[in-house]
Amino acid sequence: MSLDRLIESIKRTGNPTVAGLDPKLDFIPDFIVKESFSKYGETLEGAADALLTFNKGLIDGLCDIVPAVKPQAAYYEMYGWYGVRALYETIKYAKEKGMYVIADGKRNDIGSTMEAYAAAFLGTTKAGSGEFEAFGADALTVNGYLGSDGIMPLVDVCRKFDKGIFVLVKTSNPSSGELQDRLIDGEPVYLMMGRMCEEWGRNLPGKYGYSGVGAVVGATWPQQLKELRDKLPHTFFLVPGYGAQGGSAGDIKGAFDKEGLGAVINSSRGIMCAWKKEGCAPEDYAMAARREALRMKQDITAVIG
Amino acid sequence: MSLDRLIESIKRTGNPTVAGLDPKLDFIPDFIVKESFSKYGETLEGAADALLTFNKGLIDGLCDIVPAVKPQAAYYEMYGWYGVRALYETIKYAKEKGMYVIADGKRNDIGSTMEAYAAAFLGTTKAGSGEFEAFGADALTVNGYLGSDGIMPLVDVCRKFDKGIFVLVKTSNPSSGELQDRLIDGEPVYLMMGRMCEEWGRNLPGKYGYSGVGAVVGATWPQQLKELRDKLPHTFFLVPGYGAQGGSAGDIKGAFDKEGLGAVINSSRGIMCAWKKEGCAPEDYAMAARREALRMKQDITAVIG
Repeated sequence: MSLDRLIESIKRTGNPTVAGLDPKLDFIPDFIVKESFSKYGETLEGAADALLTFNKGLIDGLCDIVPAVKPQAAYYEMYGWYGVRALYETIKYAKEKGMYVIADGKRNDIGSTMEAYAAAFLGTTKAGSGEFEAFGADALTVNGYLGSDGIMPLVDVCRKFDKGIFVLVKTSNPSSGELQDRLIDGEPVYLMMGRMCEEWGRNLPGKYGYSGVGAVVGATWPQQLKELRDKLPHTFFLVPGYGAQGGSAGDIKGAFDKEGLGAVINSSRGIMCAWKKEGCAPEDYAMAARREALRMKQDITAVIG
Repeated sequence: MSLDRLIESIKRTGNPTVAGLDPKLDFIPDFIVKESFSKYGETLEGAADALLTFNKGLIDGLCDIVPAVKPQAAYYEMYGWYGVRALYETIKYAKEKGMYVIADGKRNDIGSTMEAYAAAFLGTTKAGSGEFEAFGADALTVNGYLGSDGIMPLVDVCRKFDKGIFVLVKTSNPSSGELQDRLIDGEPVYLMMGRMCEEWGRNLPGKYGYSGVGAVVGATWPQQLKELRDKLPHTFFLVPGYGAQGGSAGDIKGAFDKEGLGAVINSSRGIMCAWKKEGCAPEDYAMAARREALRMKQDITAVIG
């Protein structure tokens, strides 16, 4: 009902990172894309097949050293329902390989509709006498603009199925401050949203001190990361923005507590495109991703040591 | 590049309403569900087939009197990729029947990821030498918590493909005020978000005075609807919350301008479940939906004169 399973995977691997699976076609080696197009044509179906093949290779290369993956829904939805099927298959494969899966959908809506999203990503859906996991992720990112009644249906499903959520608090993008930094009664919106995470999380306590309601806080805002770590002691952080968006290991140091817990750092392009940066043989992309993931682990664990 | 096509459909039908397609299995007549289960089993595939059959019947019953449909992504995603395929087929069918389609996904993310969502729902996706509409909707609902750089990629795609967006401003749910009503420099968050819609909309001017950046404002907040109509003269409103959520025709009067334009009112359960409320034969569900849509049209056009 909390994020304990994620925390345990982080402890087991000694690695507080998550690999973002945002597979643009440009990131995928040509030999994979060509093979998929030869099977299904230069179509959405062909592209989706390439995404899935690429992801499976990455998961194989990472599953024993990286605790979690974070597929970003947008990069699958852009290939239509074929892409969404590849998202489903990616989640399934990562779980089979023992990885924790954070579906990055930033979903949000009114309560009755959030019940449907909760069923879709974290719970189950009934069809006649059957009951199925539609996507079967372990956690989902959500947006709290609608307030508590858009979040509580997720909390109920998290309790029932031992899942978690991450609420957007202070996002990594340059314009996040337009709303999130503005002051309400002297406190910035991101802090108010963070306090709501603490409040919602009371319903989902965890054994390592962190609840099932985490927060998304960008690596691009080191000062706010530290401030929020201090003020939100029960809220685990999902931290995007390391690497390609500019955040360094020094920047994310403040996200962690004294035990070296409290956050999981995402890298998407850095890991997926390691083969391009290295200039290695495209066939070696999964091992390049592994090398980059190990470098990232060292980079991060050195500062939280 | 604006919402002109929606406005023209509203003018043509004389009906400023949109039918929400949020097809829970419970809303669908048994004879449809049984037929689908007999083909595909009591599975997500079977349920998704029932959704699509139900939607097609509704679209057939409504397409000459209601200008637009608004499928809510969550109710499709809960049936996994089969459900998402039914969403795609629903959008396609509604467009073939001449309806304007608002995909209700409330998507949001950083700029590079919003490019992917924009391609998915409003633009096109390339796969080799092919270029495809992944979902091909006419408009998309979005959440502006991340600020301008999460919105601008959509604006670019709207300009290129003559599409529109609706940004969450003041949502219909009871707890929307937790953040949206709080004051920043003396003005509520919803008004600040509304002013950002006016600003973003400058890039997508329309010939009826309304831009391509609309706002979602709930029928459950009549006072704010009126206030926002006065203060956001170029922002068209998508108004949920009429009917099942409690909003009446009197409540939504303030959403319209002096010409009777400026808003489109959504009804989901009221239209989809009209056959249940009427107690008519389940086989007559599409005509019951049509009767309810005509009643709703009369109810609303009476107050906007």
